[in-house]
Amino acid sequence: MGSYKVKTLYKDKSFSFSRIGPDIYGSTHPQNLLSEIKERAEFLYSHNSPLKGKILINAFYEPSTRTRLSFDSAWHRLGGDSINITDKSSTGIAKGETHLDIAHMFNNYGDCVVLRESDNEAIFEMTKSLRIPIINAGNGIDEHPTQAMSDLYTIFKWRPHLVNKSIDDSEKITIGIIGVPSRMRTVRSLLKLFCKFPYFIKKIIVIYDDKSIDQNDLFDEGQLEQLIESDLKIELETDMQKVLPSLDVTYINAIAWVGENYEVHGSSFKLHSELPFKKDSIILHPLARGSELSTSLDQTSKNWYFAQSRGAVFVRMALLTCLMDRTTRVMDVV
Amino acid sequence: MGSYKVKTLYKDKSFSFSRIGPDIYGSTHPQNLLSEIKERAEFLYSHNSPLKGKILINAFYEPSTRTRLSFDSAWHRLGGDSINITDKSSTGIAKGETHLDIAHMFNNYGDCVVLRESDNEAIFEMTKSLRIPIINAGNGIDEHPTQAMSDLYTIFKWRPHLVNKSIDDSEKITIGIIGVPSRMRTVRSLLKLFCKFPYFIKKIIVIYDDKSIDQNDLFDEGQLEQLIESDLKIELETDMQKVLPSLDVTYINAIAWVGENYEVHGSSFKLHSELPFKKDSIILHPLARGSELSTSLDQTSKNWYFAQSRGAVFVRMALLTCLMDRTTRVMDVV
Amino acid sequence: MGSYKVKTLYKDKSFSFSRIGPDIYGSTHPQNLLSEIKERAEFLYSHNSPLKGKILINAFYEPSTRTRLSFDSAWHRLGGDSINITDKSSTGIAKGETHLDIAHMFNNYGDCVVLRESDNEAIFEMTKSLRIPIINAGNGIDEHPTQAMSDLYTIFKWRPHLVNKSIDDSEKITIGIIGVPSRMRTVRSLLKLFCKFPYFIKKIIVIYDDKSIDQNDLFDEGQLEQLIESDLKIELETDMQKVLPSLDVTYINAIAWVGENYEVHGSSFKLHSELPFKKDSIILHPLARGSELSTSLDQTSKNWYFAQSRGAVFVRMALLTCLMDRTTRVMDVV
Repeated sequence: MGSYKVKTLYKDKSFSFSRIGPDIYGSTHPQNLLSEIKERAEFLYSHNSPLKGKILINAFYEPSTRTRLSFDSAWHRLGGDSINITDKSSTGIAKGETHLDIAHMFNNYGDCVVLRESDNEAIFEMTKSLRIPIINAGNGIDEHPTQAMSDLYTIFKWRPHLVNKSIDDSEKITIGIIGVPSRMRTVRSLLKLFCKFPYFIKKIIVIYDDKSIDQNDLFDEGQLEQLIESDLKIELETDMQKVLPSLDVTYINAIAWVGENYEVHGSSFKLHSELPFKKDSIILHPLARGSELSTSLDQTSKNWYFAQSRGAVFVRMALLTCLMDRTTRVMDVV
Repeated sequence: MGSYKVKTLYKDKSFSFSRIGPDIYGSTHPQNLLSEIKERAEFLYSHNSPLKGKILINAFYEPSTRTRLSFDSAWHRLGGDSINITDKSSTGIAKGETHLDIAHMFNNYGDCVVLRESDNEAIFEMTKSLRIPIINAGNGIDEHPTQAMSDLYTIFKWRPHLVNKSIDDSEKITIGIIGVPSRMRTVRSLLKLFCKFPYFIKKIIVIYDDKSIDQNDLFDEGQLEQLIESDLKIELETDMQKVLPSLDVTYINAIAWVGENYEVHGSSFKLHSELPFKKDSIILHPLARGSELSTSLDQTSKNWYFAQSRGAVFVRMALLTCLMDRTTRVMDVV
Repeated sequence: MGSYKVKTLYKDKSFSFSRIGPDIYGSTHPQNLLSEIKERAEFLYSHNSPLKGKILINAFYEPSTRTRLSFDSAWHRLGGDSINITDKSSTGIAKGETHLDIAHMFNNYGDCVVLRESDNEAIFEMTKSLRIPIINAGNGIDEHPTQAMSDLYTIFKWRPHLVNKSIDDSEKITIGIIGVPSRMRTVRSLLKLFCKFPYFIKKIIVIYDDKSIDQNDLFDEGQLEQLIESDLKIELETDMQKVLPSLDVTYINAIAWVGENYEVHGSSFKLHSELPFKKDSIILHPLARGSELSTSLDQTSKNWYFAQSRGAVFVRMALLTCLMDRTTRVMDVV
């Protein structure tokens, strides 16, 4: 670990403590972000254990530690209890149960469902019979929206002033995404979310390996059109080294899901500490990582992927709290 | 979903709300049932979190979602914590541990055990060394008593006046059971329970496929004798269509366990909405279902299997509360 | 079960109740032990739910019921919540995640980690990035320290005056260990712990099968030297029957882990009730047992292995409470 101190990135802010080495957990920034946000958060403040007595059905039909434990931890931190499914083989699916029937069952057992399923359509089937809220924690190759929320939260934690819609052009950032939107649910969801927050983005550069995928297959039908309609400028690039010096945020995710299996990037995309990153830029990775993200970056100021992982619990806590608060206000269940 | 309103099935009762479509969750009826029950339930009323600080050992050595989550949910709803076994392969049984020794271990870890085991004898072995209560959540091909309790509760919820022993002969009901008592633990347990409540039953018709089982193998030794001794009238039938118009309750369960595997009914027994069901009759199914129960019935007034599933949580909550209350009164443990 | 009463083993002590049969759970003795211990335990007394709001990450990447449930139970008994990993195959390790990265993840999800891993080095890798406490619940063939603490606690519960350093030579005990220290993590950890408490031990006799292991391979490098430096007298023996009459404590564990599999003792070491045990001696076994420990001993006064199993929960409760208390006092986390 280095011996330098955390630098204050934004003038007029002071921190009450310093830390040796870069702030790889992003611990110093939430206060900055809070001061930039104008929304009311009384509900969040007024509850100590807002989910006391509530039961989460944490249903993971596809292998996962990170996301499952993250939701389970978030729910417990809010005072709730959980019941867990960790394995498809130990469930009634072995008896041929449909997702529609599983959802009917879930209605009786809990107050909220978090679902991961390799079958893209399962979550949509369930909503037909569900009377309690469900959160998509990754549906096959399709989407992973809470990961995208965590990614965006990390960017805001890093540069809190980006939450302001009146941002100067000079402060807008360039985001590089190493990955294939049509094959990676995390990337697809992140791009969708950027469409809602286009104002702080100068451009998005999608970096891909033209030896393993045709340029026309990079996006699923409609996604590129949605990005353009949202006033986002998209560029495609195959030479990572060339664009790295221009990127404020480098987002990478190695694992592309194909059905129940996954494939990894070609060897051309490996991030390590000797690459020509832009000064004060950061790297995001939803983790778990493979060889595409070298541990040589872990103790550098580029490392915001650990902060990203840490923030995911708090983002989910906020989401669950707001969701359950709305539920108690609007739900018409006996 | 249809557009008709729930009809009040019993005169002199009025409901404070109406619902579009049939009451497939049976939500309107628990109040009726409560008013029919004369038993004292002060204990249930006086506790908010009666199992606070108590630990359930939720031990499922056989695949299950429905029953495991149902007990886990019931226990948590009562304020308790649980520790779970969801998979035989992740346990000490891999090291050859006996059920007797497992029970010795359970004594130290929790306040109550819920057990599912494909080995019929496991639960009886455990009771030899257990000093805490155990609930049978399905022991191989043998029994599944809490399912039977939920089935009976559903019948009472549907026709609350059936709880009264002074019922008129004209109000007694005919129950059809599509299944093989000697091979289905749910059916065996339900018939055993009916022996305790024979007074509201006109007759029970067991409907079976004579191409797949001999009539003499329908019942295990002693069960038919017990039914007859309990003043229950039993008929055997192979033509489902013929008897359907006479059934007030049609109970079906497709899955017969044979060792660690299961088999399914022949194709002759498939319930769907076009069959000649009796007016105001209902269908029960312990779920999960296979092709024997068509989804065409889901949005009809025949569907009381979702109400049955919903009630299972409340029945288990009541059972667990009473059980643990008795435990604290009588147990002599250090 | 016999019909004799528990005898008071130490003069000047009286018990307020008697029990039919031997005290196979060791229930009568904790009070004796408490009166011998001079340490301050105010912290333990002053808390009702000391771990309320705290989350345990109960991470078992190797099959286990006993230890996993024991920790889970201990944590819940103290008022905390837990999140569980019960199976390597359902985790991100399937995606090639390193232990270093898993530890970074754990930092965000809980307040304490309990880890079982067949990979000896995993726990040491994790401590490099962990910022929360971790407890070794068995790391491959290496160590299982909380089991050893439970073993020692059982000995103290059995003969409370052994906690006093000023013990008479005549009261020191001889301990026989049937097993291979170099291949059994429980034995290795127990011997290490004895090095901290040598004063009550007359000698330790390691009983092994010279047909299956060479005498020079009995101990890993350094362990025998550590025992001798700690003033412990070690003897090696191959004839169990010969030494049994001299043993106050006979410790046996059948299962030796070799990588992810395990092997069992030769048939020469099987304990049963007809063997020439010393009067008032006891048998310890960490369980689960195989054929090396006959159930014929279960209802005899030799059986202190059930007491050992029972005590393991309390030892872990004490450990977790003290650990988390220290954590809140010293940890510098944001």
